[in-house]
This record gives sequence, C-alpha cells and structure tokens, in this order.
Amino acid sequence: MAESEPKFSGAEYFEGVEKLLEIWFTHTDGKAKNCDLRSIPRNKWESLLQIVHCEVISFSSNELVDAYVLSESSMFISKNRFILKTCGTTTPLQCLEPLIMLVNQHAGFNSYEDVFYSRKNFKRPDLQKSPHRTFDEEVELLNAIFKDGSSYCLGEEDSECWYLYTLHPNNVPQLAQPDQTLEILMSDLDPKVMSLFTKASSSSALEATKKSGIDKLIPNMRIDDFLFDPCGYSMNGITKSGYYMTIHITPELEFSYVSFETNIPQSSYKDVISRVIETFKPGKFVVTIFANKASPASASTHEMQKLSRFGPWMQRDIQFCRLNNYDLTYTFYSKFPS
Amino acid sequence: MAESEPKFSGAEYFEGVEKLLEIWFTHTDGKAKNCDLRSIPRNKWESLLQIVHCEVISFSSNELVDAYVLSESSMFISKNRFILKTCGTTTPLQCLEPLIMLVNQHAGFNSYEDVFYSRKNFKRPDLQKSPHRTFDEEVELLNAIFKDGSSYCLGEEDSECWYLYTLHPNNVPQLAQPDQTLEILMSDLDPKVMSLFTKASSSSALEATKKSGIDKLIPNMRIDDFLFDPCGYSMNGITKSGYYMTIHITPELEFSYVSFETNIPQSSYKDVISRVIETFKPGKFVVTIFANKASPASASTHEMQKLSRFGPWMQRDIQFCRLNNYDLTYTFYSKFPS
Repeated sequence: MAESEPKFSGAEYFEGVEKLLEIWFTHTDGKAKNCDLRSIPRNKWESLLQIVHCEVISFSSNELVDAYVLSESSMFISKNRFILKTCGTTTPLQCLEPLIMLVNQHAGFNSYEDVFYSRKNFKRPDLQKSPHRTFDEEVELLNAIFKDGSSYCLGEEDSECWYLYTLHPNNVPQLAQPDQTLEILMSDLDPKVMSLFTKASSSSALEATKKSGIDKLIPNMRIDDFLFDPCGYSMNGITKSGYYMTIHITPELEFSYVSFETNIPQSSYKDVISRVIETFKPGKFVVTIFANKASPASASTHEMQKLSRFGPWMQRDIQFCRLNNYDLTYTFYSKFPS
Repeated sequence: MAESEPKFSGAEYFEGVEKLLEIWFTHTDGKAKNCDLRSIPRNKWESLLQIVHCEVISFSSNELVDAYVLSESSMFISKNRFILKTCGTTTPLQCLEPLIMLVNQHAGFNSYEDVFYSRKNFKRPDLQKSPHRTFDEEVELLNAIFKDGSSYCLGEEDSECWYLYTLHPNNVPQLAQPDQTLEILMSDLDPKVMSLFTKASSSSALEATKKSGIDKLIPNMRIDDFLFDPCGYSMNGITKSGYYMTIHITPELEFSYVSFETNIPQSSYKDVISRVIETFKPGKFVVTIFANKASPASASTHEMQKLSRFGPWMQRDIQFCRLNNYDLTYTFYSKFPS
C-alpha cells in the first residue's frame, strides 16, 4: 500500500500478499479468565510493530475487539486472540519472541491454544527479508519457538499455492466455541475498480469505500478505512458481537492484489464470496476457509466441492485438509484457462 | 529389498519408500492405435533399467500387460501405459529422456496423455542420489522435460507427506476409459508379520505369500512372487482383464516398510484397505486414491472422509485434490497419538 515511488502505473514493485499470524493464547493453570491481551499498553504494541517494520495509522475499538489499521495491513486484538496481517517486506515472524514475552508480562497468558501462520506464495520472494524468503525458512523459525507444529502447502507448489504452519498443542482441549475464518486472496484485478483506490479518483477513504461497494459486503460493520497517497487502501470493520472484516488493496495494474478476510459465521459463504469477487473483479483468486466443528461453516468443504464455478470464474484446484481442531478448505479459481 | 549386509536386525539402512513413475502415452496425429509399448524389445528395457540402477529378476505376462519384478520393486508395461516403481537408491528420473526416445522409436508414440511421478517422503533423503535428494530437484528435472506440469505436497511437509508431479497436456482430451489407482504405504510394521519375509522363516516366496495371506488380498490375481536372500519380498499380480497389484516388503525392524498398489476398480476400497492393514499390521500408513470421473472409485473422497478410523488406526490427516483428469485423495492413519 504505502509505496516509495508514487506512480499508479510503472510503479516500483510492491508485494500485496500478506503474512498472516493468528495466535489464540491460554493459561496452562486455568487462569486464562483473568488474562487479557487488551491490557497491553499501546506503546508496547507500537514498539513491537517497529520490529515488524510497520506502524499504526488508525484505530477503532469496541467492547470485544481492538482493530488497528497499519501502514502495511492490520492488527486485531481481542481478549485471547492476536491477529497480525502484514504485506510488503514486513517481518512479522521477527516479533514472535518479543510478542510472547509481552503477552506473558502484560496480559498474563503463558501458553497457546492454536497458532496459525499462513500466506499465499509471493510474486517476488526475492524481494523479501529474512526469514520470509522461503516457507522453509519461516517454518524453521516457527519450529524453533513452537513445538510440534505442522506445515502444509495447499495448491500447486511454486505456482498458485498457499502455505500454512499450524500448532494445536496436544495438552490443550479443543475449543468448544465456534470459530471460522474466510479469506479471499485476489490477483489481476479489474483496472476500473482498482482506479477507485487512488487519490486521483477518490477524495477520501469513505468515497472509495462507498463507490466500490465495500460498505455493502457485510452488514453491520463499523468501518475504519484509509486511502493511501497516491494509491492503496485498507479497511477494518468490526461488529458489536466482536466479528471483524478487513480488506487491503494494492491497486497498481502491474501487480494488483486485494485480500478480504472475515470471521463472521455463515452456514454458506457462497453469497459473501460472490459479492466480494463481483465487487473487485479479479482475474484469479484463492479462497481459504477454516471452520471448527462447532462452527456453522463446518459444512464449507462440501459446499466448495460443489461450487465448480462462480459465473466466469472456474474452480481449478480444491484441497481439503483436516487439522487437529479445524477443517480447512483451499480452492483456486481463475477466469481463463490457466 | 536386496541388501548389501545380510542381517535382519542391525542391517544397513535400506530405503523401502519407492519412486513411482506412471506415463500414459499417445500419438498427436491419432495414430495411437498402431502404437504399442510391448513392441519394445526386452534387451532395450534391460538397458534402460541399468540407468535406473536396477534389473529384471522375474517376468510374467498376459494378453494385456507385461509385469516385471525388479531387483528394486516393479515395472508394468501395457499398450500405452508405462509404470516404473523403484525403491532403494535407484534413479528412475534419470531414464526419462532415453525412455521417451525408446518409446518413440520402437512403440511409435510421440506424446503423453498423463504423467504422474509420486513418492512418500524418504526416511533418509541424505542417502539418495541426484536428482532424488529433494522433491524440488526432482521437479526441476521433470519440468525440464515436460511442459506445464504441476507439483503438490499432500500431508504434513517434512513429516508424513507424499509428493506428486502431474501433467495432463491441455491439447489432449480427457480419458473416457475408467482408471483408478489405490496405494497403501505402510511403516513400522508388526515384527511377527515381517519375519515371514525372511529366508529364515519361509523356504520360498510361495510360502511367504500363503503364510502371510497375500494370496487372499485380491481374488483372481496370477501371482509372480520373489523372496530375497536373506530377507525382503516382492510380488506382482495380474488379472486376465489387465488389472495389476504389486507388493514390496522391506522387513528389517529398524526401517520396516511395505507398499501395496493396485488398479482394480471398486466403488469402495474400505474392504481392500482393511484386508491389507490387517495382513501387515503397520504402525502408520498413507492411503492415496486416484480416480477419474468414469471410474467406479470416483466417490472415494467422500468415503475416505467418513472413514475416521480403521479399528485401532485413527485418521490423522486427509487431503483432497482435484486434478485435471483425476480426483486424488490422500489420507494418513496411525495407531498411536502422533
């Protein structure tokens, strides 16, 4: 989003693909009730983000979740769940050890219920900083910190694929509370739609949000949006019941990329996916759905197997992976024969 | 199977995990009817196998298929399908270019309908010869020969996983004829069962085949079996209708490994899988099923999703992958919490 060379076309390469870290903390002595990640002071989060090479540019909050728009993507903090999603050449895995110390000191947690680190394949891995140049290198760092994690590559290796490192410690009971995450990772987007996310076309983030229809994607979201100069867009949405959505847009034609993510519970994501892809008109996109057994989305795998096309977008690849605590469905769609 | 140090226990490490190459040949000018891989002379196959570092030790045949037992596993040749499965430190990908020339010169084919190269993760990749030390290296060689192939890693990377490289050229129509392959790749096997596959316990291959119950696994198979000295076992079975089965056993306790493979069509593989694992009693095993749309096995994915356990063996991982021409299901089972 934030670029050093401010040109919509002919711009310096920017990696829109995000690294996504989600950690559910707990306390091994059953003291988790008294722990809260939101007890961590703002200046501590800001110091942590310096290690990642990004900073807070906007903040919104309600009783259940704190949502940060970052110079590169977003951070969501709730009682026991930490989500950090960062694009460009940020280094989120470098903050893991300081994060764990910070969480222990200020929030009181001393263990993990679930850890997820995931990302799509980078378009330009050569531009990344260590340990993010290869997934192997990322896994090596994660394994040095966490024990018994599992790593997966879903989709076609070295082509359209999505990497996941996940850990659910055996001594931690399965979450009874429903949880689900939908991600839609879009590439080669429609230039007309992308042009909305430039200062040249939209005078404000609000205007870009409304003109594009982002405000219509999921109802009842309180939106905190940001339009970058000269181009690029980020938004966080939160609901009173603690659900979130987040969208990040790299609009430059040569490397356009849009990510959409939400944890709203749905028994079918067909309509949400349709609205998102009709809004952004990607040439190709990856859909990933995590759902635990208690989630209404637990039938998503069966649904996605049946969704062999969304209008002009054909399903090219589908993979299903049963994890310890979650079912995971990966699908890849593209408009033209690949 | 063939070891340099003849000890059942304390033996030199032998990699039972096979590299499996399956190529369906065709002719771009519709002349495939006049082509036949079985026109290739035996001495040409033997020269080819020298490049792979293995040799023919037994042969059986019927109207539809030629089946070779090799010093390291098996080779099956039918009109347009080539299957080479080799264990140890053999180098099957080194024979690809000479194979393609041989097939063109003596069998007349000039193109491929489908190409599959697959293997489980090696226990000791460090002992392999190039290009088999890493899957990346194998894919690099395959991509240098074939265009537009896709590579996958199913299961947990660097742990229990199974690699696949596959190619279905876009200009080749989808196979209308039903096709399916079931593989069961077993590790940590029962020592009592394994001891049957030693010269000390069985005086002949036939005795090992009967005492173990291998002859009862699939009916109507004409069996060509071989018992290695001092231990190790291979068998090929073929039916009049052209189906095959093949089993390879590395019985040494420290690195016991058994592979089972067949292409018999079944609407459910539950009974076959049960018979195989009850015969060999592995600590853990991988099941892979390929089935095209015309195959009665095309519902296998749904079936395997429901088979969360086989007696004491619990399903730990399941992945499903929709390829161009085939659906592929990967599952991993183990006896004890892993």
